[in-house]
Amino acid sequence: MKVVVLAGGLGGSRLARALAETLDPGELTIVGNIGDDIEILGLHVSPDLDTILYTLTGRLDETKGWGRAGESWNALETVAELGGESWFRLGDLDLGVHLVRTEALGRGEPLSAVTTRIARAFGLEPALLPATDERLRTWLATPAGELPFQEWFVARGHRDEVDGVRFEGAEAARPAPGVLEALEAADLVAIAPSNPFVSIGPILAVAAIREALERRSVPAVAVSPLIGGEAVRGPAARMLARMAGGTSPAHVAARYEGLIDALVIDEADAGLAAGVRTIVTRTMMDDGEGRRRVAEAVLESAAALR
Amino acid sequence: MKVVVLAGGLGGSRLARALAETLDPGELTIVGNIGDDIEILGLHVSPDLDTILYTLTGRLDETKGWGRAGESWNALETVAELGGESWFRLGDLDLGVHLVRTEALGRGEPLSAVTTRIARAFGLEPALLPATDERLRTWLATPAGELPFQEWFVARGHRDEVDGVRFEGAEAARPAPGVLEALEAADLVAIAPSNPFVSIGPILAVAAIREALERRSVPAVAVSPLIGGEAVRGPAARMLARMAGGTSPAHVAARYEGLIDALVIDEADAGLAAGVRTIVTRTMMDDGEGRRRVAEAVLESAAALR
Repeated sequence: MKVVVLAGGLGGSRLARALAETLDPGELTIVGNIGDDIEILGLHVSPDLDTILYTLTGRLDETKGWGRAGESWNALETVAELGGESWFRLGDLDLGVHLVRTEALGRGEPLSAVTTRIARAFGLEPALLPATDERLRTWLATPAGELPFQEWFVARGHRDEVDGVRFEGAEAARPAPGVLEALEAADLVAIAPSNPFVSIGPILAVAAIREALERRSVPAVAVSPLIGGEAVRGPAARMLARMAGGTSPAHVAARYEGLIDALVIDEADAGLAAGVRTIVTRTMMDDGEGRRRVAEAVLESAAALR
Repeated sequence: MKVVVLAGGLGGSRLARALAETLDPGELTIVGNIGDDIEILGLHVSPDLDTILYTLTGRLDETKGWGRAGESWNALETVAELGGESWFRLGDLDLGVHLVRTEALGRGEPLSAVTTRIARAFGLEPALLPATDERLRTWLATPAGELPFQEWFVARGHRDEVDGVRFEGAEAARPAPGVLEALEAADLVAIAPSNPFVSIGPILAVAAIREALERRSVPAVAVSPLIGGEAVRGPAARMLARMAGGTSPAHVAARYEGLIDALVIDEADAGLAAGVRTIVTRTMMDDGEGRRRVAEAVLESAAALR
């Protein structure tokens, strides 16, 4: 069964890992968010692609939920000593990826191609594709003004309330090679329990990807990022409350109106209407059993919905 | 007494340190070789400037004679894992310098300006200037063909004999801001015991620097890189033998014809004619006493020659 999963960072990487542990490698294509990519210290950093890559190849620092296990911070220590930008935490092991990626992009290699090369070298078996090879950047409208994603998220610790999200470059962005083909060939499209606004939003902002989902002939199912109305991590619940009017399954489902046939929700949210079919399970994926449970719920939904 | 020292890597940094330990900070200007700069992994690396910087601020790995003390190699380990270029050994602490420098150059900051910023942040007191802000690169004519400096030196371990040296960009290169002013104001010009061909050669290949030395009104003294006809380190002796016909003080002095008034030579080479006035001392500078001895020989020569 061929599955495409749209994925952001931590929640995205967890569902991607859950599916990778259940499906054959050739059956899974992960389409990653690049709206939070950043150019810093002259490097092109793709935090969500890297979190997925590190998670699925056993390299993630599971305690932090980002970055590499066994990381050191010597380069950044020097940068800080020299008065350079050190607020965006780039570890030494991690830097190696950014150096190789940046050099490749500088030579004109598309992001999707260098991502594939890096993924293969790290032993990742499913396909990992950026939503687009073109520049697409997430901006947040906040009471403090419009902020680029990482300034809002990392530098200011996502303390600013968000009134709106804008995806710079989305209108012109074409899906990366392989994305539409994978959606075309898929038996199921899954949307990971990532932040609907800033993790899945940028992927769906690529018009051709949204259109492919709208006209799909196969089931699509999203996993809610909420457990009992709270996000496992990050500002998703606060953003839903402020921008969508609430933190129920229905508020999540509304973000994907016309794009999904079912929503996997946590037992803690069972009984709440979602406006689409719901599948209830325990959605926490912090261990193998949790991942298996969610992967099964997602994959079984395909049969039920077809 | 104001002194300008022309310096390459290890030998250059040792004489620069020796002079820095003897003079007041405002009295010393170090003009560093940038002919062995390299762009690698998208980074601009200035190995000689950095060796000088690390040496004079206590950051050098004294055992290796290059790179930072207490260095780690995690970024390069990742680069190697990803099939990137890892033959040029960039440590993590070291990388921080290259990131800051490369980003600054990308913004249009001249090499001399970012070098000054880095030097100040590291607490370097004497002025450290690249010979030029413009692109100047050393190429070696060898039986295996013409090779860029670092390919010959690092990748091939300087095993190829050298038949000639070429300084790409030297004709157009103007001295970095401050270089001519320092030479103008100097009471003494010193040439470090660096490789005359590939460390001092690129500095003297900047026409305005060579001309300033030729028309100097103050003494200039070089320290021979030879001890008993051998180089302390590196291929200087082999290059002198092959390209200058021998490894005596005279062969060193001939490299600086018209540019120096005296040559400091080691006791092991005493008694050999040099074609210029010689000052005999022990020239090894691997400890504080050695550095003091050589600094004194150099500085006292000025009085004797004036």
